[in-house]
Amino acid sequence: MEIKGFTFSAVEAAIKKPGRLDLAVVISELPAATAAVYTTNLVKAAPVLLSMERSAKGVSRALVVNSGNANACTGSQGLSDALETTRLIAERAGVAEDLVLVASTGVIGKPLPMEKIRGAVPGLFAPSAVTDLDGLARSIMTTDTFPKVKTCIGEAGGISYSLAGVAKGAGMIMPNMATMLSFLVTDAAVDPEYLSTVFRDAVDASFNIISIDGDTSTNDMAVIMANGMAGNPTIQRGTPEAARFEAHLQETLLSLACQIVRDGEGATKFVEIRVTGAYSNSDAKKAAMAVANSLLVKTAFFGQDANWGRIIAAVGYSGAEIDQELISLSFDDVLMVCNGVFVGGDAEEKGSEVLRKSEFSVTIDLALAEGRATVYTSDLSHDYVSINADYRT
Amino acid sequence: MEIKGFTFSAVEAAIKKPGRLDLAVVISELPAATAAVYTTNLVKAAPVLLSMERSAKGVSRALVVNSGNANACTGSQGLSDALETTRLIAERAGVAEDLVLVASTGVIGKPLPMEKIRGAVPGLFAPSAVTDLDGLARSIMTTDTFPKVKTCIGEAGGISYSLAGVAKGAGMIMPNMATMLSFLVTDAAVDPEYLSTVFRDAVDASFNIISIDGDTSTNDMAVIMANGMAGNPTIQRGTPEAARFEAHLQETLLSLACQIVRDGEGATKFVEIRVTGAYSNSDAKKAAMAVANSLLVKTAFFGQDANWGRIIAAVGYSGAEIDQELISLSFDDVLMVCNGVFVGGDAEEKGSEVLRKSEFSVTIDLALAEGRATVYTSDLSHDYVSINADYRT
Repeated sequence: MEIKGFTFSAVEAAIKKPGRLDLAVVISELPAATAAVYTTNLVKAAPVLLSMERSAKGVSRALVVNSGNANACTGSQGLSDALETTRLIAERAGVAEDLVLVASTGVIGKPLPMEKIRGAVPGLFAPSAVTDLDGLARSIMTTDTFPKVKTCIGEAGGISYSLAGVAKGAGMIMPNMATMLSFLVTDAAVDPEYLSTVFRDAVDASFNIISIDGDTSTNDMAVIMANGMAGNPTIQRGTPEAARFEAHLQETLLSLACQIVRDGEGATKFVEIRVTGAYSNSDAKKAAMAVANSLLVKTAFFGQDANWGRIIAAVGYSGAEIDQELISLSFDDVLMVCNGVFVGGDAEEKGSEVLRKSEFSVTIDLALAEGRATVYTSDLSHDYVSINADYRT
Repeated sequence: MEIKGFTFSAVEAAIKKPGRLDLAVVISELPAATAAVYTTNLVKAAPVLLSMERSAKGVSRALVVNSGNANACTGSQGLSDALETTRLIAERAGVAEDLVLVASTGVIGKPLPMEKIRGAVPGLFAPSAVTDLDGLARSIMTTDTFPKVKTCIGEAGGISYSLAGVAKGAGMIMPNMATMLSFLVTDAAVDPEYLSTVFRDAVDASFNIISIDGDTSTNDMAVIMANGMAGNPTIQRGTPEAARFEAHLQETLLSLACQIVRDGEGATKFVEIRVTGAYSNSDAKKAAMAVANSLLVKTAFFGQDANWGRIIAAVGYSGAEIDQELISLSFDDVLMVCNGVFVGGDAEEKGSEVLRKSEFSVTIDLALAEGRATVYTSDLSHDYVSINADYRT
């Protein structure tokens, strides 16, 4: 898929193990309206600090990203390495240095291997580089087992435009922001101020409703660049074009978010947690998140055990207001609990059947009011422990 | 050890697998000043609801406890089963029914097997019952691998008294309350109102500073009964006797809390997390708890990986105020991070050596002010996943 005026390029810089792409650049032919959302972790990696400052202008030309090293907890050396990386790209690409954003993902606390990056940058501009979207998606993988890409075609004022996104996930996945890295590009012309709010909303309704392990990373970053080269009339807030653009953006981000959950470290299940009947949407989200993050619930999912008691217990400590005598719970459409009590009969057997599926939903109705929320999560398996016990070795 | 005027009795009621004690009673010859702390989970098991009501009077004569079934999420049937259990004990022991407390631990959502309990109660008053403190401790074990007991001798007004406690832990361990069950008895005479506040403080400084899996149970309960049969002058707030009593109580509860962490489900490490230099003690506790509950930190402990970056990241999202450029971190006395940056040299090697020990400390200095907190936690192993994936099968 072509996104007009955007080029992608990825190479092996040997930051990760040989044979894996680990350095990539996205360049826009024209300055692009740019919005970004960053980690809420107070410990922020050097590339996050630098990109926060630069993206605040609402415009950018390029983004450089490496995997294998997070350039986090690296002090002033980390900041000067991030700066140098963007300068190397700016020089080669012929763009202003302060229009280059930078992102990193990987091991925390080791200096960025600048020799390798300096050596690899020319390759990004050579014919041997991998120049498709898939290459970009692969270059940001760490413990991910597959590249995460989503594209779609929109239309505004009779002109069609393209929207494409990539993401990486796997571990340290928890809202605000959820994903470690996600980059979106579109050739649509979009009002920059409108882009900024709509992007934040779409991130809230996608990356911020997934959870794998409850850890928020130091490097989370989601960026969208819109260069307008499709030639459509600029999309403005409140128009029918805006509504359609929001739907496409939402669909793209939610697809990437769900791909991240499906590829959660060691995940064997993809579970939708739906809470209804809460006093407020925020109460519903608290309850759903508590369930999604409970180790006891996640290990029960892994064990294919219809252990609804652990789910009710997690709702009970979530901070959401509840009345335990009103709660009902279903696995897919199998009602397990009604008014806080197990329904009995063949529910245990039918519930266990649902749990043996690789994808299912859990619906918890608090029966108090109209608040609702949905979050997506994975199970907790032996492989999660193995992957994270041995990550650096 | 004798605690004057208290008798213990435990039997096999076949609620758990054969060969394991699962029903026990503690009886005081005289009415005992009683204080208790209960789970903060809004979903409360029937025995919790009943004991909360009864212990509010500040006096009790007996406590009956079963393991193997939590009598949680069992609705009105659960409440009437809890009531009947206390009535059976009251009749046999010849005490008023409303002076009998009740506790349960085990699987959630199944009705209490009352036939078994009715059949087993007479045995509690027969010579064949197990009548020591160890029997009580064993009768409340679920996935615990060893009974948890702590005793000590105190002195007030020249009269020596005994204090003894038991606890169970293993899973669903997270502050407020931390332990699922803990029972303490003393033959000291203690002012009831004073007992209530001092017990809550001691629980805060023991069970509420440990975390194994971040799940708060529906059945948590800690109770102390003081029957005064040692014959000491009643211990009153603000006296030297009170200070010594508090120290003994603290020591007993902290010992039980640490035994729970050591026996955390699948635990291979006992880790003390110390945070110093925070703006407040509460900020320090937030930071320490975030580290203790991080799956990435806990799996790194299991992997014996000195992955300090994950610890710093957890501090960053803990909600505590920090300045990432001031943080330092040590494993035991090996300094790993200074001013937010890895110290280099042989720290990696020496840090890894510490992580290979079965017990070690992590000290995080925020270097902002004087706030401090210590929490105790375990690692997250393959066995935790196995135990909890297969708990009901």
